[in-house]
Parts: sequence; C-alpha cells; structure tokens
Amino acid sequence: MPSSTATVSGLLDTIAPVGRDGATGGYRRPVFSHPELELREWFVAEAGRRGLGVEIDRNGIIWAWWGEPMPGALVTGSHLDSVPGGGAFDGPLGVVSALVAIDRMRERGVVPSRSLAVVVFPEEEGSRFGVACLGSRLLTGLLTPDAARRLTDRDGNTLADVFAGAGVDPEHLGPDPEALARIGQFVELHVEQGRGLIDLAAPIAIGSSILGHGRWKATVTGQGNHAGTTLMNDRADPVVAAAAIVGLISELARARDDARATVGRFEPQPGGTNVIASHVDFWIDVRHPDDSVTRGLVDQIAVEAAALAASYGCDARIAEESWSPTVGFDPALGRALAELVPGAPVLRSGAGHDAGILAARVPSAMLFVRNPSGISHSPEEFVERSDADDSADVLADVLAGLL
Amino acid sequence: MPSSTATVSGLLDTIAPVGRDGATGGYRRPVFSHPELELREWFVAEAGRRGLGVEIDRNGIIWAWWGEPMPGALVTGSHLDSVPGGGAFDGPLGVVSALVAIDRMRERGVVPSRSLAVVVFPEEEGSRFGVACLGSRLLTGLLTPDAARRLTDRDGNTLADVFAGAGVDPEHLGPDPEALARIGQFVELHVEQGRGLIDLAAPIAIGSSILGHGRWKATVTGQGNHAGTTLMNDRADPVVAAAAIVGLISELARARDDARATVGRFEPQPGGTNVIASHVDFWIDVRHPDDSVTRGLVDQIAVEAAALAASYGCDARIAEESWSPTVGFDPALGRALAELVPGAPVLRSGAGHDAGILAARVPSAMLFVRNPSGISHSPEEFVERSDADDSADVLADVLAGLL
Repeated sequence: MPSSTATVSGLLDTIAPVGRDGATGGYRRPVFSHPELELREWFVAEAGRRGLGVEIDRNGIIWAWWGEPMPGALVTGSHLDSVPGGGAFDGPLGVVSALVAIDRMRERGVVPSRSLAVVVFPEEEGSRFGVACLGSRLLTGLLTPDAARRLTDRDGNTLADVFAGAGVDPEHLGPDPEALARIGQFVELHVEQGRGLIDLAAPIAIGSSILGHGRWKATVTGQGNHAGTTLMNDRADPVVAAAAIVGLISELARARDDARATVGRFEPQPGGTNVIASHVDFWIDVRHPDDSVTRGLVDQIAVEAAALAASYGCDARIAEESWSPTVGFDPALGRALAELVPGAPVLRSGAGHDAGILAARVPSAMLFVRNPSGISHSPEEFVERSDADDSADVLADVLAGLL
Repeated sequence: MPSSTATVSGLLDTIAPVGRDGATGGYRRPVFSHPELELREWFVAEAGRRGLGVEIDRNGIIWAWWGEPMPGALVTGSHLDSVPGGGAFDGPLGVVSALVAIDRMRERGVVPSRSLAVVVFPEEEGSRFGVACLGSRLLTGLLTPDAARRLTDRDGNTLADVFAGAGVDPEHLGPDPEALARIGQFVELHVEQGRGLIDLAAPIAIGSSILGHGRWKATVTGQGNHAGTTLMNDRADPVVAAAAIVGLISELARARDDARATVGRFEPQPGGTNVIASHVDFWIDVRHPDDSVTRGLVDQIAVEAAALAASYGCDARIAEESWSPTVGFDPALGRALAELVPGAPVLRSGAGHDAGILAARVPSAMLFVRNPSGISHSPEEFVERSDADDSADVLADVLAGLL
C-alpha cells in the first residue's frame, strides 16, 4: 500500500496545479467548478487507495470511512473549495492531513474502537453562492433546502442546477439527522489565518471559539446617465456615494476594538467606463467576538450609510445575507485536545469554519497550523513543509487519543 | 416598395426587443455580440429592401450606397452597438433616420447629383474593447491595427478573434485611404445626451464641437488577506484606498467649471465577499472643453491619488487608455446646416462620436435630437415618437440640400 509513504506536503504538491492562476499563483476552486470537482475525484481516489469506504450524502458532503459507517463515529476533515485568488492550504490542509493521519495511525498499529470518517464539505467559503459553510448548514438544518436551491452564482446559475450537474440531486438537499448522528465528535484541522502562532512561535494551536460574523448586501441607487454630458452638479452618482460609505464602514469598524469590517466585492451596474452607474451592489463582511457589538456596528452602518447616500442624492439599503453568532467549541473536547497536544496554545478564530456550524449540534474542536505569512485568502498564504507534515502526526495523536 | 411607408419610430419598434434586458429595460449590444450582429443583419436587409448596395469594408464598417461608390460622396449614419444598460436611441436613431431620410428624398423626387452612403460604425461606445470610436479610429489611422488586434474584452477574447468570428479578417484592419476619400462630407444624427434642447424647448440642434475626453485606468494595490482574521490596523485594503480616491476625483472635478470625471467601472480583485482585495482596477472618464484643463485635472488626480493611497499603505497608478482632444466641426458645413435647418440652436457635445474622429480628416457635422429625460447611457434615455419621425424629415432636408 503506497499510502504509507505519503506526506502532507507531497500530497499537497500533487494537487497544487489544480485551479491555480499561472499569473498570480492564486487559486480559484469554487464549489463544483472543474477544479473543485477534480479535487473531489482526487480525494475519492486517495480514500480508495487507503481502503476507505466512500459515500456522498444528500447534501454533497463526501464521507470516507475507516470502519463501517456508524452513529457516534469520530469525524475529521475540512473542505476543498477556495475563495477566488485564495491560497493552497485553506481547506485542503485539513483534508490531506486527515488522510495522512490515518496512514500514521495504521503504521503505529492503532486499532480503532469505533469508526472514523474523513469528510469534505462543499461550499465552505460561500464564494460561489454567497452562503459560507453551506454544506454543514444544510446538514444541520441551519439553511433550508428551499432557500439553498434558490441561490444563484454570479453567472445566474441556480444552486439547484449546479448541484444537479455535479450529481447531487437538489430535491434531496436538507437536514440529515442520520448523517449528523454519525458524528460523535468532529475535529477540523486548518491553516491559521492570522498571526497568532507567529507571535507565539508555536507550530500548532487549539481553537477556542469562532468569531460571530455575517454578510450584508448593500445596494446604493442613484441615477444612471452619460459620463460626458451630465454636469457634476446634475449627478446622483451611486459610485461616489458607495465609495463614501466604504470609507465610513472602515472608520466605524476601527472605532471598535476587535471589530473587522470588509468590503471585498463592489459592483457598479451597468459597469461601463463612460456610464454613470444606476446603482452599486457591494457586500460587507462584519465580525466581532461580541455578537451585540457586531449587530450594533451593522445597525450604525445602515443608519449612517442611508444619511450619507442621501447627501449624494442617492438611496442606500443594507440587507442581511447570512449571520453566524460567536461559537465556543466543546470545553470537554478542548480539554482532551490540550492533553493530547501538550503545550499547544489556545487561539480564537476570526474566520468561520464548518466546525463552527457543527459545534451547535455535536462536540467539535479545531486545530490551527502556523502560517508564516499571517496572510490567508491570498496566494501568500503559506505553511512550511515541515509544519504541514508534522500536522498529520499531531492529528494522528489527537484522533488516536479520542478513538 | 414598402419602405415608403416606413417611419423612424416604426423601425425602432422593430428592433426594440434586440438585446433588451427584460428586467431593467436597458440594452446590452456590445460590438459583434449576438444582439449587435442581429442589428447589423437587419440593417443590411433594410438597405437591400431599398435597393442600396451594401459593402463591409476592411474595418467592419457597413456602407449602404444610394448610387455607385465614389470619392467625395455624401455620407451619413451612426452606430448600432450600445453601452451595457444603455438606451434604445444612442446609435440606432442616426442609422434608422438615415434609412428613412432616403425614403423621404425619393418620395420628394430628389435626384442626387452625387452618391450618398449610410454607414454603420463598429464599437463606437468602446464598451467591449475599451477604445471608443474604434471603427473610425482604424479607418483614419488614429488607432494602429496592431494595437487594435491586441485589445481584449472582459472575458479575455482578443479583438482579432472576435472580429474574425464576425467575418472581419483582423489581418486587414487598418487605415483605409480609399474608403476615407469616399467621404466628401459626413453628417451624423444622434440623440442628445444632455438637457440642452429641453432648456431651449427645441426639437433638434446642430453640433458645434465635441468635448475633449479620455479614459484612464487606475490600479490601486494593497495586501490581499482574510476578512475575518486581519485586524483593521494590520490592513492595507485597496478597496478602502480606491474608494477614497473615487471621492477625491469627484471633488477635484467639481472644483473646475465644466469638468466631468466619472468612475463607472470598479473591480476589486479577486472580488470575494470574505476577502480583503489584493488590488482594485477602476476606470476614470474625464472631459472638459479645454484640453489643458482635462490634462491638468488628470495630472492632479494622479499625484493626489498616489499620496492618498500611500496613507492607506497602498500604491496607486494611473495609465492613459485613450485620449481625444476637443474637436470643432467644419465651420462651412455648420453654416450650410444652419441654412437647411432654420432656427436650430447650436450645441456642444459632451459625448464622443465617430463624427468627432472623422472631423480631423473630412468636413463633418452633427445633428442632435431632443431627449426629454436628459438622460443617456441608461434605459431612461428617450425620444418622443414625433421627434424621431421628424428627425428623418430634417435629415432629408439636410442631405438633399447638400447633395
């Protein structure tokens, strides 16, 4: 069985070309795009090489079983989709280290007392359909199948059509109590997306919680017109108004310790160079450890944005697209991990993860691997080869200890 | 011959569904897209119904001849492409009124002393390949064929491939002295794109000049990162910097009488909701009657944008994409039009037109038809049916008088 020689860094090398932009080095692996489907096939093949039984559930989540599927199993894994222009580790590191951790446990002669599954969640990033952790939200019932089916990507494809095209029947999407009951405990290993482990000079950390976060869509409406014939004083230009609101959002977030507010997607319509836009759609990502602060910040943004837009003759409206409250991971599982990874620091995650969604229903935990750039969702996201390889050993320690 | 009953409003009704967005009512007819090709075919058919001889020249310009092609002919016409989300009249009004003007002259028994051609220019708007008046620029040599062939649209298609797909051999693009010599005089009729004729309560105006205008591409570079894990103070967010620059541009333009500066296209990269962008591309359209003011304004924008970007830890660069100096139309031709359209006011155009490109090489003139909304490049662009129909009679008066 060749898998015994596999390393995390080696397996990551294998999939490195998939969905990579030759010019920027960034990845574009939206859920059920050709690159992401290629990674899913690759995962199924790697699971097969290890003799793991593979099934794809009604929500498109892949399960690879060491042992028979059973309630109360130990489950690990992550996701294979990426944000546009993302890095190589966000998602795949947790999937690959899970496969190699099974190799390591087998090499050590671990005999599991219960089954173990490696899972791959679809659309963790929400970069295609706008809802992050879509697979785990469907699984747990946090997102209704009707709402999911109606989601569309930027090209106007419905989620129903895209899932059907990938072989996942959209009519069967939805809460899956049987699948959920199989998760006795969930441990997700992930690249760190901040500077915590750099500052602590440590290779791996245990997660304590996930910051509450949400996405809001802002629409600023003005008066579309000709860029050459419309005098400045006759304009109600929604791009100018929306730009002022972007500045406002940044200032309001800076005024609150630990708040983060981001506009990463900004789309004037119709988007012509010589056209004063008729409206602008942009999206606001807001996070804070204290959910009431997040809510208060968004409320303030909405009120001040409307007033600011009005001063430009425009109208601004802000609508919630998704919201996840701050989630603490399971304390007992956290204590178990602290014993199994001695000396590991405990870090809070500013990023959302499927483990944060599952935490509301099953004992869940996370491990974070050092990222020397401190940068994520960017080609500069990085993990040292030795840290990547060691992550499988640490994960094997944790899984073997929990089995 | 059924064309004798044709009216401008009736013909515009015929083509109204082509490329119209059912939701917004706006048009999307980029050059050599399916809708624009459908309009070109429709034009060729209408020319054929009138017994006009049709040829397509090396730059993709359609010529429909009343009489044999000859040097020094009288030429009229406009374009059929639109900006994204544009109106129904910008371009088609001048093409349709030219066809109906020929009907009217024939009904009146006009016997031309020289040939007359109706032309359709490709890519007047520059909305697909970024260079406005592309056909007339190629014809006159203002744009080199090498530069043209290298242009790409948003989907990465080269102009060479798109033109080849529409049956225009890209190897043969370029200056066409023979075709240019056929234009003894050029008269373009166009919907007004401002409020001049509303204020004057007049249905049609004679153009005096076209404002100098240009397009500049701005690139603001920061540090891509994760929206959740990157603290506000650790950011170099190019969206926030670019938004501040958009506000700066608007302020600097307002500070100069008669200046217009517009950002209608703004593209954060990679454009993910939960991603701090790595850079933003946006385009600036700047116009002023005095070219030195336009140049000075752009220079000031470049200097102040760089300083502003630096204050956000970002870098801003501005590069010229196109530039057209202020163009006055032919004075003798203008006097002739003033006699042929008694009482018509004289207006300056804030918008660019193929007539403005041709004016550097051949005597050119324009007629503007009242637009009761004062709005253009928007679904709200409008022409009353009676004004549209009358425009063919006025154009027939002008052409008959010049023939």
